[in-house]
Amino acid sequence: MKPVIAIHAGAGNLLRENFTPGDAAQYRAGLARAVKAGFSALEAAGTALEAACAAVAELEDNPIFNAGRGSVFTHEGTHEMDACVMRGTDRAAGAVTGVSHIVHPVLAARAVMLEGRHVLLSGAGAEAFAREAGLEMTADPAYFDTERRRRELELALELERRTGPAAVLSEDDPCAAAAGPDRKFGTVGAVALDFNGHLAAATSTGGMTNKRCGRIGDSPIPGAGTFADDQTCAVSCTGHGEFFIRYQAAGDVAARMRYLGESLEEAASAVIGMLAGVGGRGGLVAVDRLGRVSFALNSPGMYRAMMSEDEGPLAAIFADEALTPVL
Amino acid sequence: MKPVIAIHAGAGNLLRENFTPGDAAQYRAGLARAVKAGFSALEAAGTALEAACAAVAELEDNPIFNAGRGSVFTHEGTHEMDACVMRGTDRAAGAVTGVSHIVHPVLAARAVMLEGRHVLLSGAGAEAFAREAGLEMTADPAYFDTERRRRELELALELERRTGPAAVLSEDDPCAAAAGPDRKFGTVGAVALDFNGHLAAATSTGGMTNKRCGRIGDSPIPGAGTFADDQTCAVSCTGHGEFFIRYQAAGDVAARMRYLGESLEEAASAVIGMLAGVGGRGGLVAVDRLGRVSFALNSPGMYRAMMSEDEGPLAAIFADEALTPVL
Repeated sequence: MKPVIAIHAGAGNLLRENFTPGDAAQYRAGLARAVKAGFSALEAAGTALEAACAAVAELEDNPIFNAGRGSVFTHEGTHEMDACVMRGTDRAAGAVTGVSHIVHPVLAARAVMLEGRHVLLSGAGAEAFAREAGLEMTADPAYFDTERRRRELELALELERRTGPAAVLSEDDPCAAAAGPDRKFGTVGAVALDFNGHLAAATSTGGMTNKRCGRIGDSPIPGAGTFADDQTCAVSCTGHGEFFIRYQAAGDVAARMRYLGESLEEAASAVIGMLAGVGGRGGLVAVDRLGRVSFALNSPGMYRAMMSEDEGPLAAIFADEALTPVL
Repeated sequence: MKPVIAIHAGAGNLLRENFTPGDAAQYRAGLARAVKAGFSALEAAGTALEAACAAVAELEDNPIFNAGRGSVFTHEGTHEMDACVMRGTDRAAGAVTGVSHIVHPVLAARAVMLEGRHVLLSGAGAEAFAREAGLEMTADPAYFDTERRRRELELALELERRTGPAAVLSEDDPCAAAAGPDRKFGTVGAVALDFNGHLAAATSTGGMTNKRCGRIGDSPIPGAGTFADDQTCAVSCTGHGEFFIRYQAAGDVAARMRYLGESLEEAASAVIGMLAGVGGRGGLVAVDRLGRVSFALNSPGMYRAMMSEDEGPLAAIFADEALTPVL
């Protein structure tokens, strides 16, 4: 089997006119680093799970993406991160939600899966588990503070004062543009196929700028934002999480393949098209058991990349853009 | 359309020899009260959502069931409850997880859905939301303390001291028997079809005795423990939640109907049979858009009941038992 890794780093209102050439190059370089990290794991005979986690951990370390280090701020000026992994061999899954001190939430999700007792752990319990598992923690949650994300929160709060809280999280609110091109659907994820023909998916997110209420999105929920089953495919989603939960987006791609006999491309397009019809914006990356990769999106753009034996890293940002080589 | 309501109040190792006739009568009476509450709502031209919530709220008030008033204790001697609702007309959903002061968690889930901004709220954020929504709260979490549940926690802790923590949550551990017939999979749920042909589902749980780590089960997750779509069916599950999450149990019943053209009964049996094959114990109640009801289970018993225009409340406990009238 020819191994392959494919990633996304969020979909949203990404328009060419808002990117300088320098911006685009910076994002493409970040994507390339992540697929290289994932592909190195595959080349070293690592499992699909290890590769997906390596790629996502690299994205978590990069402050330009909304996960780990670059996580956005909640309304209270804190960070609440979610992550999930799923393994295709046995549909084992692990996830954490609402964590604030774990340097790589995706590795905590993996630890939950490997421990095997639970699937989804939240808040202080998830952090206690990660600490016991020996994962890298930071005592100072300010580790996740970045100036850019703080400015986004300040902008969102200012707009909220003017327009009321309902505007902040609505699909087309002015904060989305004001607060930067990737504020809305900041999530990172990876899917991989390894030498042994096994699949895995991993997703990690810093949530939404100015979110409150202990809101949990689709990222940490198997079948919603993350899915893997060797019989069909591995999927990681990014988008308006509430819709991805209600429509079990990631799981529905697999269900269409299994029950309708659709190809990966057909199933991924059908699900993202259906979501567009009900107002659910976003996208996904998926790989099937033959190594075919699909990027499906109904937003103007999605940070995305892939790497296989055939060629080096390929990346794209805008919806109408083909994947092209990056250094 | 002939309205119908059907409920469960948990599946598990329910064996005839562990029930006195008085026990069985008490459970059947509690089930009857709940289906009557739900059916009254339907007869008064209430929506399927109102009916499902009325039935579940009644089960939450009954201290013999593990939800609301009768919720089990966590390891720390507290209560952490989860609930979810889903509406078939538009697949709207709402859920709360890890709440400790909301008298009827199912009504908090409904409020989240009706507010429409989020689907899943956790912990303090969910409680703040419920308070703002004007729901009945209790300042004293001891409201949820019952002697029987405390005894179950003490038994579980005692067994844990002797056998180690891993034993506590395993499928066949001695605590299951020691701690009472419904300790393992204590969850309540309802599905309904209303006069207008709309479907809804609601699920509520007090979790697992002696649970830790901020564990979230399937109950509050749309597509896992709870699902409704007017095109196919409404489903509420009960069982070993980790399996129901990994296999998107409730959503898979609907996917099999939609994509494979299976009947409700075929789809429900296939999903519960598949779960049995991978070690996922439990059951579900489901209703389709023609008002056909299915109870599927792979455990020795499941508290269950239904009511329609054709006859008064019918209930059953053991797997091999037909539904029979209750007063």
